[in-house]
Amino acid sequence: MIGYQFMGKMHSHAYRDLPFFFDPALKPSLKAISGRDEEAVKQAAEIMGWESYETDWRRLIDRKDIDVIDIVTPNHTHAEIAIAAAEAGKHIISEKPLALTVEEAEQMYEAVQKNQVIHMICHNYRFAPAVQYAKKLIKEGKLGKIYHLRANYLQDFIMDPSFPLIWRLKKEVSGSGTLGDIGAHSLDLARFLVGEITEVSGMMETFIKERPLPDAEEGLTAQSENSEYGEVTVDDAAAFLARFENGAMGTFEATRFAGGNRNKNKFEINGSKGSVRWDMENMNNLDVYFADSPPGLQGFRTINCTEEEHPYAGAYWPPGHIIGYEHTFINLMHAFMEAISKNEVPVPNFYDGVINQRVMEAVEQSSIQKKWKNISV
Amino acid sequence: MIGYQFMGKMHSHAYRDLPFFFDPALKPSLKAISGRDEEAVKQAAEIMGWESYETDWRRLIDRKDIDVIDIVTPNHTHAEIAIAAAEAGKHIISEKPLALTVEEAEQMYEAVQKNQVIHMICHNYRFAPAVQYAKKLIKEGKLGKIYHLRANYLQDFIMDPSFPLIWRLKKEVSGSGTLGDIGAHSLDLARFLVGEITEVSGMMETFIKERPLPDAEEGLTAQSENSEYGEVTVDDAAAFLARFENGAMGTFEATRFAGGNRNKNKFEINGSKGSVRWDMENMNNLDVYFADSPPGLQGFRTINCTEEEHPYAGAYWPPGHIIGYEHTFINLMHAFMEAISKNEVPVPNFYDGVINQRVMEAVEQSSIQKKWKNISV
Amino acid sequence: MIGYQFMGKMHSHAYRDLPFFFDPALKPSLKAISGRDEEAVKQAAEIMGWESYETDWRRLIDRKDIDVIDIVTPNHTHAEIAIAAAEAGKHIISEKPLALTVEEAEQMYEAVQKNQVIHMICHNYRFAPAVQYAKKLIKEGKLGKIYHLRANYLQDFIMDPSFPLIWRLKKEVSGSGTLGDIGAHSLDLARFLVGEITEVSGMMETFIKERPLPDAEEGLTAQSENSEYGEVTVDDAAAFLARFENGAMGTFEATRFAGGNRNKNKFEINGSKGSVRWDMENMNNLDVYFADSPPGLQGFRTINCTEEEHPYAGAYWPPGHIIGYEHTFINLMHAFMEAISKNEVPVPNFYDGVINQRVMEAVEQSSIQKKWKNISV
Amino acid sequence: MIGYQFMGKMHSHAYRDLPFFFDPALKPSLKAISGRDEEAVKQAAEIMGWESYETDWRRLIDRKDIDVIDIVTPNHTHAEIAIAAAEAGKHIISEKPLALTVEEAEQMYEAVQKNQVIHMICHNYRFAPAVQYAKKLIKEGKLGKIYHLRANYLQDFIMDPSFPLIWRLKKEVSGSGTLGDIGAHSLDLARFLVGEITEVSGMMETFIKERPLPDAEEGLTAQSENSEYGEVTVDDAAAFLARFENGAMGTFEATRFAGGNRNKNKFEINGSKGSVRWDMENMNNLDVYFADSPPGLQGFRTINCTEEEHPYAGAYWPPGHIIGYEHTFINLMHAFMEAISKNEVPVPNFYDGVINQRVMEAVEQSSIQKKWKNISV
Repeated sequence: MIGYQFMGKMHSHAYRDLPFFFDPALKPSLKAISGRDEEAVKQAAEIMGWESYETDWRRLIDRKDIDVIDIVTPNHTHAEIAIAAAEAGKHIISEKPLALTVEEAEQMYEAVQKNQVIHMICHNYRFAPAVQYAKKLIKEGKLGKIYHLRANYLQDFIMDPSFPLIWRLKKEVSGSGTLGDIGAHSLDLARFLVGEITEVSGMMETFIKERPLPDAEEGLTAQSENSEYGEVTVDDAAAFLARFENGAMGTFEATRFAGGNRNKNKFEINGSKGSVRWDMENMNNLDVYFADSPPGLQGFRTINCTEEEHPYAGAYWPPGHIIGYEHTFINLMHAFMEAISKNEVPVPNFYDGVINQRVMEAVEQSSIQKKWKNISV
Repeated sequence: MIGYQFMGKMHSHAYRDLPFFFDPALKPSLKAISGRDEEAVKQAAEIMGWESYETDWRRLIDRKDIDVIDIVTPNHTHAEIAIAAAEAGKHIISEKPLALTVEEAEQMYEAVQKNQVIHMICHNYRFAPAVQYAKKLIKEGKLGKIYHLRANYLQDFIMDPSFPLIWRLKKEVSGSGTLGDIGAHSLDLARFLVGEITEVSGMMETFIKERPLPDAEEGLTAQSENSEYGEVTVDDAAAFLARFENGAMGTFEATRFAGGNRNKNKFEINGSKGSVRWDMENMNNLDVYFADSPPGLQGFRTINCTEEEHPYAGAYWPPGHIIGYEHTFINLMHAFMEAISKNEVPVPNFYDGVINQRVMEAVEQSSIQKKWKNISV
Repeated sequence: MIGYQFMGKMHSHAYRDLPFFFDPALKPSLKAISGRDEEAVKQAAEIMGWESYETDWRRLIDRKDIDVIDIVTPNHTHAEIAIAAAEAGKHIISEKPLALTVEEAEQMYEAVQKNQVIHMICHNYRFAPAVQYAKKLIKEGKLGKIYHLRANYLQDFIMDPSFPLIWRLKKEVSGSGTLGDIGAHSLDLARFLVGEITEVSGMMETFIKERPLPDAEEGLTAQSENSEYGEVTVDDAAAFLARFENGAMGTFEATRFAGGNRNKNKFEINGSKGSVRWDMENMNNLDVYFADSPPGLQGFRTINCTEEEHPYAGAYWPPGHIIGYEHTFINLMHAFMEAISKNEVPVPNFYDGVINQRVMEAVEQSSIQKKWKNISV
Repeated sequence: MIGYQFMGKMHSHAYRDLPFFFDPALKPSLKAISGRDEEAVKQAAEIMGWESYETDWRRLIDRKDIDVIDIVTPNHTHAEIAIAAAEAGKHIISEKPLALTVEEAEQMYEAVQKNQVIHMICHNYRFAPAVQYAKKLIKEGKLGKIYHLRANYLQDFIMDPSFPLIWRLKKEVSGSGTLGDIGAHSLDLARFLVGEITEVSGMMETFIKERPLPDAEEGLTAQSENSEYGEVTVDDAAAFLARFENGAMGTFEATRFAGGNRNKNKFEINGSKGSVRWDMENMNNLDVYFADSPPGLQGFRTINCTEEEHPYAGAYWPPGHIIGYEHTFINLMHAFMEAISKNEVPVPNFYDGVINQRVMEAVEQSSIQKKWKNISV
């Protein structure tokens, strides 16, 4: 695994818990992590249970005892690492967004295809049991023809103007801002549940244009009074309208400026026969409506998706004993291990990463040019 | 009052209840209603408590004992009636949308200005105590600088393809479809709470393009097997992105194809200091978030707006004893009567009707031309 | 109508609105109200639309042009008035609780039976469409055998120790406190929905034992610094366990000391085939669970009881356009008028008042004697 | 660890995850588990990560390399194991309820005191961050004087009459039924948050008195058509009223017959200054009301307890990224390890087990004798 911050911790945890809950065909073996700061990476390896560490990611790729490369570094490094890993014949799992640009993403996809390695992208929200169950209902036609998807991903953690200029707010490191970080999740859920998008019209905004530079010594959250300021070069918020190939209408909004919404990742889908609603802050529940319920008895029912019938849920606790955010990653890693064991490419993979990147690029272009943009598929 | 269907019943009720709950400077006197079907209008007058009736609306305008004309007819008749009423020196209250086109709306506004009559448009949702209280919080700066408004108005009553081609689905009678009928309410709330809109990008769709013609004899809901079909000439659903004069971003969606949502008119507004959320299906409640609540104690609080502090609520029942949809109209009529008694023009009025019409026209144009459109103010 | 405070206003409104929404066989004619303060009763008559007023309730009973006596006075006067009215052959509708004691209640019931007048008691919550629909589901066996009812009625309006010693806090005027005022409503709903109660174990408490006397001149809410104090002689809170005749278990709690709950009157009923939940603060909704929903799709569905299928709801607005507290009274008055027109005794009536009183007396006795008490039926 | 079913899995997981999230002074080392079925216990050890296994729990107690005994066996074995472990000088953590009877519980408590070992009882719900935060608010006086606690623990997993007669339904193995299994949790939360209980009045019921015997070969869920039946000797549902030492009133209900409630463990507490509400099915949230919020802005606020300020939450994911049921155990084990490292007895411990047992015994007695019972403390 390359990188060991928030997502590194999350992935490590998922690998550890996977064999406990499931009976995977392949059990992940935590060989090594890499990071540039030796002291920090050494400590991380110890706490998170990795056998060894490296201070240069290339060493990981050279090692013969490593079959899988897990990329949890800042976005601008994904392409170089993934391509090197693919060429070394390693299977790859990468955090999202796949790359800084469509071009980079396409090169990555080309590399994994050419070298015939298994590849996956970490859109973990697909793996909430409630979302998987929504997919099942849609696939079985229980919602009928889909008319609408409306998706919001609302956060508020950078609303304070004194919040520092972290790497996620710099275009050269992160590629995009809110759109690529959280909007990408909504987009991926939409494609998973409703289908491909053919055209978009976008609107993007940076509300706070300058922020104090992070104080390197003291870390991200402490700024001295005399902080210098730097320019925020990504979007604080993005919204877009979309049309799906199947005729459905989509509305999307992603923002880090929606006070009171810590991590509100939610969607509603309406079809000719029924509707579903989901909200990550209450991720075990799925609200479901069926138009053919008897008159007088029609209404959204709230299903606590913690039963055998709900994908992945049976591996955990008895009905009503809820699971949390981390389980989306355990489930995802389960799908990844299953895929490797069968030598099949799982979904979502680098292809999805490419398409998501294309849609996001179209949203950006549309926002600048003030007109609708088609997505080339 | 001209017209006596759903909205006619609603307005009549509001006039009757107004003096019971408030102590208005002017008490409405229910002089006469008009409608073309003598039998029906006679019966309506009796049930709803009108002293007399007419079968030609022009007779109402001619009558000296009538000071106020209330227009609750289908949209294509608003302009002619309103202009005639204004020229006769009557005060006017009209259902929304004001007219079929911007041009018609402007002529109506010109007429009321020229003849110096009081005028109002029935955007009743402004008058829910919770909405009025949200306005108060915003006006007092409690939410700070506004970043976002997201508004949805979701219904599902025409999802059945056998639902007939009523007048609301014909452009020549209604002007527009979902956008003008319910999207107009979201738009009006947005302008009331956040301010003027400067540009929009829209998307509109008609999912069911042909419907059975209503059987004139049997009324709206019964179609014979051999029904003939007619073309639906308005939108079933509309969505648009908007920028406000003050820099806020707006996202809007109105649809009659969101199964399970009978009348879900809701919005959320996020500002630098706080947020509010409201949903008409639970109209007494306002969710409020303040960013300056102590750490650990931050969260949306649900306020049951049934107390003295909440505008209009004090006139009704003790705290916690909720009011319903009809009270938005009683409150609106109270504002109208107060305005007449003070010889002041209330809000929202025909000016708001004109601006709303301009925004909706820009949404339609934008949807056709696939690019952003400015709103001229 | 005798009395003209909160409930007087409510009843008057219901009479006025009844013919507007329904097409009643009998239309109420608002003949006269009575009250001791001439100035106040005169003004009340005018605002609320009564033709005349009296300052002695006996005059109302003497009047030949009056067929129905509506009792909305403090509880200690109910018996005398009702008995006099019955003897004069008037139909009677009385606010709850019926009387101060079981004995009084029985005398009242005897009087209406002997004189063969129509009688009703104002347990209005039975008449919420959602509650009526719950009754329908239970009656049709949709919930199967009933195992549990849990009912809470939570308020908070007297939590401030400076809240004055109003009549509702004095046993000689009100008979009981929270139990009789709001616990009686829960009890009535329980009997309506589940059946008769055979035994109870109660617990009652007065948290604030002395309160400032109301300043007669200035009204209820203003106390001078030098207020004298008086003893609170009723319960602030009451809870009880109950067994129903059909084997179900009941738990009840009523309090005016549940901060944040303005008027939270709610219940849940669990049966072998399904469950229902209701909450007055969101009175249009009924949550319904069916055990025979397909595995994976089981959950409480939220029904907005505003459709034709929901009792009384069809008389008001289109689906999703909610009604409020006052509609429970309009519906109740409709049932009363229908009953008079058919010369049938409606439910709930004085018999229910007697039984409710017996249960409450058993709760009080049980609380004092610290043991279970049987209810004699 | 002795036992390896549901709770064994849960405890094992907690030990594994503890050092990953926290930096505990003592890291648990998973030495050995015991169980009677060698094949099964061997497999469990492997999957759950235990170094070795035994088929007789006495061997575990004899082993020198084991410092802590974790008891997750059926209730009737707790006492014997715990006393033996205490005498061998092992620290002990036991599942609840502590024992079959008060007497047994007292013997266990005596043993741990005499042998001066650290002891804890697994009332895990205390360790939800939202519950810990509620405790903090109450301790700091933020809710003022406590007037009410109402607690429900509602399940529905044995409503089907064909559900077999598992050990939890037999008094000789489990001691009590719903009361001891889930009512004990509500009781423990009440004592943690409000204080000691001085008297109770209870009501208990067994709705389904006979059930098919489990088919030993096929496990718990499969019964053959020819199943023999056995008597259910514990309660299906229990409710009780309680008075707390500090004057507060408590109402409790625990049932496995509340259809639609899979695991609804919830409570509300009302004090003179504020209220809190919590529901395990949405365990990250705490609803908080403060009576001193400005007029007009009073209402329950929903706090997503996933922030640094919320006890234990900081060890996991960023704000808004929810945790699940298993984290209550990780937190509990953290408290246990901290206690051992400091040689202090943590809470809740065997003393709490004894008191909880006394209250439950009083509830049972009260239910039989039909009168209130005092709790001796």
